[in-house]
Amino acid sequence: MKKTRPHRAQPGTTPGIESMDDLGEPPAPGTVHVQCIDYGPDQTRTQAVTDLGAFLRLPRPDRCPVRWLNVDGLHPYVVNQLRQSFGFHTLAAEDVLRLPQRPKLETYEDHLFVVARMPSLRDGQLCTEQVSFFLFRDCLVTFQETAGDIWDPIRERLRKSGSRLRRLGASYLLYALLDATIDHAFPILEAFGDQLEGLEEEVAEHPTTKLQRQLHRLKRDLARLRRFVWPMREVTNQLCREETAAIAPEVRTYFRDVYDHTVQVMDMVESCRDTASSLTDLYMSAVSNRMNEVMKVLTIMASFFIPITFVAGVYGMNFEVLPELRWKYSYAGFWLICLSISASLAWFFIRKGWIGRK
Amino acid sequence: MKKTRPHRAQPGTTPGIESMDDLGEPPAPGTVHVQCIDYGPDQTRTQAVTDLGAFLRLPRPDRCPVRWLNVDGLHPYVVNQLRQSFGFHTLAAEDVLRLPQRPKLETYEDHLFVVARMPSLRDGQLCTEQVSFFLFRDCLVTFQETAGDIWDPIRERLRKSGSRLRRLGASYLLYALLDATIDHAFPILEAFGDQLEGLEEEVAEHPTTKLQRQLHRLKRDLARLRRFVWPMREVTNQLCREETAAIAPEVRTYFRDVYDHTVQVMDMVESCRDTASSLTDLYMSAVSNRMNEVMKVLTIMASFFIPITFVAGVYGMNFEVLPELRWKYSYAGFWLICLSISASLAWFFIRKGWIGRK
Amino acid sequence: MKKTRPHRAQPGTTPGIESMDDLGEPPAPGTVHVQCIDYGPDQTRTQAVTDLGAFLRLPRPDRCPVRWLNVDGLHPYVVNQLRQSFGFHTLAAEDVLRLPQRPKLETYEDHLFVVARMPSLRDGQLCTEQVSFFLFRDCLVTFQETAGDIWDPIRERLRKSGSRLRRLGASYLLYALLDATIDHAFPILEAFGDQLEGLEEEVAEHPTTKLQRQLHRLKRDLARLRRFVWPMREVTNQLCREETAAIAPEVRTYFRDVYDHTVQVMDMVESCRDTASSLTDLYMSAVSNRMNEVMKVLTIMASFFIPITFVAGVYGMNFEVLPELRWKYSYAGFWLICLSISASLAWFFIRKGWIGRK
Amino acid sequence: MKKTRPHRAQPGTTPGIESMDDLGEPPAPGTVHVQCIDYGPDQTRTQAVTDLGAFLRLPRPDRCPVRWLNVDGLHPYVVNQLRQSFGFHTLAAEDVLRLPQRPKLETYEDHLFVVARMPSLRDGQLCTEQVSFFLFRDCLVTFQETAGDIWDPIRERLRKSGSRLRRLGASYLLYALLDATIDHAFPILEAFGDQLEGLEEEVAEHPTTKLQRQLHRLKRDLARLRRFVWPMREVTNQLCREETAAIAPEVRTYFRDVYDHTVQVMDMVESCRDTASSLTDLYMSAVSNRMNEVMKVLTIMASFFIPITFVAGVYGMNFEVLPELRWKYSYAGFWLICLSISASLAWFFIRKGWIGRK
Amino acid sequence: MKKTRPHRAQPGTTPGIESMDDLGEPPAPGTVHVQCIDYGPDQTRTQAVTDLGAFLRLPRPDRCPVRWLNVDGLHPYVVNQLRQSFGFHTLAAEDVLRLPQRPKLETYEDHLFVVARMPSLRDGQLCTEQVSFFLFRDCLVTFQETAGDIWDPIRERLRKSGSRLRRLGASYLLYALLDATIDHAFPILEAFGDQLEGLEEEVAEHPTTKLQRQLHRLKRDLARLRRFVWPMREVTNQLCREETAAIAPEVRTYFRDVYDHTVQVMDMVESCRDTASSLTDLYMSAVSNRMNEVMKVLTIMASFFIPITFVAGVYGMNFEVLPELRWKYSYAGFWLICLSISASLAWFFIRKGWIGRK
Repeated sequence: MKKTRPHRAQPGTTPGIESMDDLGEPPAPGTVHVQCIDYGPDQTRTQAVTDLGAFLRLPRPDRCPVRWLNVDGLHPYVVNQLRQSFGFHTLAAEDVLRLPQRPKLETYEDHLFVVARMPSLRDGQLCTEQVSFFLFRDCLVTFQETAGDIWDPIRERLRKSGSRLRRLGASYLLYALLDATIDHAFPILEAFGDQLEGLEEEVAEHPTTKLQRQLHRLKRDLARLRRFVWPMREVTNQLCREETAAIAPEVRTYFRDVYDHTVQVMDMVESCRDTASSLTDLYMSAVSNRMNEVMKVLTIMASFFIPITFVAGVYGMNFEVLPELRWKYSYAGFWLICLSISASLAWFFIRKGWIGRK
Repeated sequence: MKKTRPHRAQPGTTPGIESMDDLGEPPAPGTVHVQCIDYGPDQTRTQAVTDLGAFLRLPRPDRCPVRWLNVDGLHPYVVNQLRQSFGFHTLAAEDVLRLPQRPKLETYEDHLFVVARMPSLRDGQLCTEQVSFFLFRDCLVTFQETAGDIWDPIRERLRKSGSRLRRLGASYLLYALLDATIDHAFPILEAFGDQLEGLEEEVAEHPTTKLQRQLHRLKRDLARLRRFVWPMREVTNQLCREETAAIAPEVRTYFRDVYDHTVQVMDMVESCRDTASSLTDLYMSAVSNRMNEVMKVLTIMASFFIPITFVAGVYGMNFEVLPELRWKYSYAGFWLICLSISASLAWFFIRKGWIGRK
Repeated sequence: MKKTRPHRAQPGTTPGIESMDDLGEPPAPGTVHVQCIDYGPDQTRTQAVTDLGAFLRLPRPDRCPVRWLNVDGLHPYVVNQLRQSFGFHTLAAEDVLRLPQRPKLETYEDHLFVVARMPSLRDGQLCTEQVSFFLFRDCLVTFQETAGDIWDPIRERLRKSGSRLRRLGASYLLYALLDATIDHAFPILEAFGDQLEGLEEEVAEHPTTKLQRQLHRLKRDLARLRRFVWPMREVTNQLCREETAAIAPEVRTYFRDVYDHTVQVMDMVESCRDTASSLTDLYMSAVSNRMNEVMKVLTIMASFFIPITFVAGVYGMNFEVLPELRWKYSYAGFWLICLSISASLAWFFIRKGWIGRK
Repeated sequence: MKKTRPHRAQPGTTPGIESMDDLGEPPAPGTVHVQCIDYGPDQTRTQAVTDLGAFLRLPRPDRCPVRWLNVDGLHPYVVNQLRQSFGFHTLAAEDVLRLPQRPKLETYEDHLFVVARMPSLRDGQLCTEQVSFFLFRDCLVTFQETAGDIWDPIRERLRKSGSRLRRLGASYLLYALLDATIDHAFPILEAFGDQLEGLEEEVAEHPTTKLQRQLHRLKRDLARLRRFVWPMREVTNQLCREETAAIAPEVRTYFRDVYDHTVQVMDMVESCRDTASSLTDLYMSAVSNRMNEVMKVLTIMASFFIPITFVAGVYGMNFEVLPELRWKYSYAGFWLICLSISASLAWFFIRKGWIGRK
Repeated sequence: MKKTRPHRAQPGTTPGIESMDDLGEPPAPGTVHVQCIDYGPDQTRTQAVTDLGAFLRLPRPDRCPVRWLNVDGLHPYVVNQLRQSFGFHTLAAEDVLRLPQRPKLETYEDHLFVVARMPSLRDGQLCTEQVSFFLFRDCLVTFQETAGDIWDPIRERLRKSGSRLRRLGASYLLYALLDATIDHAFPILEAFGDQLEGLEEEVAEHPTTKLQRQLHRLKRDLARLRRFVWPMREVTNQLCREETAAIAPEVRTYFRDVYDHTVQVMDMVESCRDTASSLTDLYMSAVSNRMNEVMKVLTIMASFFIPITFVAGVYGMNFEVLPELRWKYSYAGFWLICLSISASLAWFFIRKGWIGRK
């Protein structure tokens, strides 16, 4: 996996977004996309925002009680504009930009700040992307590292009139987005589970270092998945309990559902980890067994021929006085000796179970 | 094990049963069976329901204070009809259909929603099936994936007049069904325990990769069992404590009994896991020992014959000046040398304990 | 170990003692023994009860405020008689009979129900037996699987006038019996500890599969011990805290003592488990070392003789033109070559530390 | 790593700083450096303190509400002077001098005492240094083992007028210093992560004891890092919650940020530990595979030549009656036999997968 | 380690000191030493007590508000005399005598009972000794198994006037003694740490079973240390929190210091355990590597000579028709063949990295 170097501040520099570079300079065109969706039970208005500063000064449209501002691409200038308009804490604004953050929930007076991670598979390897949410009573601001399509079904649902999503306000929108984010882990875990199942056969039959490395990488990905799902569990649990005006009471049951999904993801991760660790045992035992087999072949080959080669060597000696050389049936006797040695060795190996049993 | 692909929703789609496919279309005849048992201390009436919509509009029979509606086979149409009639939460109704769910207990105003798993063995491998319960004060609705016979003894008991089951209401029925479900794990665990005991002898005597794979599968099944018994423990514990009108006070002691059984199942699972992991150690040590034995045979064979073969080779040389060749007792001397080399090697190997001690 | 098949009910059958077989039929004579000891500060009366039904209807003797009813051997008929007389809960009565139960404490209105396990060693293997206690303010009913002698010292102490046991009531008797039961684990653990210490020497010197199997069995026994001591700890801890009239306040300090002993047993079990697991490491390393040694002998033997055997082979060739054959000092030269090859190999092996260092 | 022997007191000696050696004697010039920075929103005054006793008696400058006294180098004389002036507890003063202490937070009436550890890498190995903080409402006293440059950015920030650091008082200064200290762990962990990634390739291809030792040392360093980050987490968590006048309310959010960083460090440490332990598995399997390969080469070589060498030996015998010696096509026949033996062995090895598959 | 058999009671015997043997009989002279130190801010009086019974009836000296009674050597007679005089609970008195006890703290109405363990190294092996404390408001009674010198520094400090020890009462004395006891673990752990560091080099270079056994013993000692430090942590933690008149409020901070030391000991134990377990991995990998090396030497030796020995054997055959025997350059050709075989094998081995790379 190509690793993105984390965007950490130098130890000791001023905390908060105010001291970041590029704060005063707008992003290059096309690197950051801001989309605003205003919606209510009656209507939905979608617009791509180009001049964010001007847009934020406009009044909100009528009969659209909820606003969803989605920012694809992270840039200090944009985050800071939104911070000034919405009043985010300077550390929260910084957390949106400093990657990676651990999933967490922070409560402020009139809003919640949620950091989550969205997993995906690229070339069979786990990647994760940070998503940040600021939830107000009537507005949700979301930040994504890159433009993705996993929230498209939700945009689709916002367009359908009469949907629960349009009726239930900003906290339900947060629920829908978080749910889509977590649910993204299921197909990934199923892919991992399939890989592990496929490895079982391979490992038992042809244990190679390549397989063990594959296992090592799977384990690493599983450990990474686990490390961000664990705090997600805390976050969703807190969302079920948090006493805040930003979350509508009827939405709490839905957050319980996200919590359940997170626990299920946790369970599947643990299950895969157990299997991977048991496969390592299976691997080691298959390697040992193969070694055993190789050794047995060597031992059997050597044991059969070493004694009779010695006998042949004896009668290749050039002593002047070596009476057997002149006997008539010596040669036949020699083969008799060889046969009887071989037969007794064969009997010994069969009794040991080295021949005839695998 | 043939794995059923889980019935998960696409990430991002509308949650709740309303957005599922097949919602408007009744199931093919014969795929879903609904049975209704109305009972009370005095009588029991059993009927197979064919037209569920019509049935739900009928009044309940007299002198049968408790109703048990059991649905075998999961179909959105049927679950939705019952949801509308009984007022299940849309997410709960969805959970009945989206498999697999983790065992859990959810409390609603006038009812409880319980998800449990029922284990069974098919061809020696663990399968589990989801069972869902909606417990009202005077009614229990249950859903099973497939028609099974494990609740037949309870139907039998409902027919016996004077039984506690007929006296104690819907929550006692829930207890009886949950108890039967959990108790199903005992024979499975005993089968696993017997398999492990059988493996011990095999593993110590003939350690093969096949055995290790069998062990690997047992471990996987045990891990799976553990993963659903653990939340079952929470569920039964909550049932002992939940303050709800749906559970009659005199039934709490019975739920404590189910809790005890769940803990016992947990204990047995842990015990089997310990044994399996200790068997892996035993396996590895048996493999190493066998390798040792093979190596010893090779070393002993080679050590005995390699030196004397060399001696024979020496006197097979064709040097013109090789005085021993002409001596009279050379041949006898050759055998003497061979014997003394062999004797000293034998002494060495016996002292090392490689010969004569296994 | 000969395993007693557990006495579990079929899943789905009616819970409680009422539905058990043999309920109506008294046990065969000689299979169940009931002993009643009535005692107080002044006197002690011991009697073997033959007709339990009649006995229970008799009034209790004067000046004997405490009664201890001990039942050796478990039979539904007897347990049910006592249940009707004392008012045990039907599930508790069933738990006395359904083996094995996990140690537990259940509180009822006027009595406590305690299940404990008593460990013992038979032929060096761990066996455990269930003991059940019903503690009332002035009476203790105990059930044992088989008649044992471990409570005899307490019967002895009951006969001595002036002992604390005779002054302090039924809860102190429970304490004395539980204490004797727990303390039984100490000699067993010491035996295990001695076995482990003995194994250390053996394992390091002669690692055989037999030893590893012995270790495997010890581990299994330790795991089993642990599994019942753990809940015993909870039980004794609850006994220290339970607010119930059945336990006299001055006896609480004594239960704290039993709790301390249970924790000490736990500690010793953990200690033995650690040692056993470290012995497995020691075993594997001893096996590997022996293999190393075998391999070294083979390599040294082969390396010394293979090259010089080749040299001898060269001069055993029958080429017509092979000038060395005719030289005068060829034979001496041959031995010189052999010696110098051997010497350089010896130097190589000594430098590697394969010869002369073990 | 060159280990500094810990500065522990002899068991049994008087606790507290009063009984330490060198208490009465000032440190050698140049070993201890004291720097005092007085600052406020308007101005910052920095001075190197040479005569500490005289300095502490001087009044503090106007319009500088906050004072930061930093001591580089630990000496009982200096610590004691400050103790007497500021009223530290004698045990706290001792803890500053007795190395190493575990990170901790102690609350006194008018001040907090915080012990932290600052990690650094020297020659690729982890070193840690103790830093102690005494936080008063308007003053912070800090002690470092040696003069370091990691707090220089903060001194820099103190010089910039208008910075939050100059506005927010002593507790914000503590936050800034602690934050810089914790953040120092990130580059170290990234270096460890890179080392582990580099090891993966090496371990799979050329498993040598040297690599395993490197892994062993990495593991040891990670364990050490973990052991001091864990209590740091507790300390920062307490700092978020501690109800004390010494911490300004608006600074709490900032301490929550330090806490988040500590948790992230913990996460990365755990991640590295998982990877290291999985690399050990990979290592062992690579070693076994290489052994397998070596054995296969030996077995194949020996198996090919041992039988045909025997055949050659047979016809090197000197029996007078050995008819094949005189046949015309014997020699061709001999090669035919050799070829057919080799061919059948080759077929056997290819079928086994020992030749042609790696 | 020579193991002292534990002094446990037979299961079932009367609990409490009253039923112990030797209760009525004073100990043999010279086996038990009682020392009494009365002290106060003004003076200290030390006396060896010979007739304990008479001594306890004497009034305490003036101006010595605190008394420390130390008993070296455990004997029921002596403990019982003190019990009757001070009113210890019978079970506590028994715990002083029944070895080993787990460290614990028990609160009685007017006193505390503390059991601790004091570790020491004898011949490089860990020994522990039980120390018991009864703390009253103005008196401390201590029991040691054998006379030791680790409390001598404290006796020394008691003789110095003006020390905190003489001012602060019995609970401060308890603190000083406990602190000395715990601090005794530090040099032991440093010795273990040095041993482990020394083992690292040895294990990587010359892995022998002896080293692994040494490691096994270190692990066992560490596990033993851990097992008594863990409850010591609880004890010292309780001492910081216990609401009792026996502990002066200003001494609590000092107990927090002991608690810190205990946690530090715990940390060091865990650190050593981690290192030991990582050394086991290192050991196994070093063994495997050595085996690999041995195998490589064997394989290289055998592979070089086996083919050319066969060639020599071919030309040692006595066929009448073997044309090469008569060719003129056969012998030179033979060496050419040998050289080319060796060269291609050498190339093969170098490419594999078996020659020239370690």
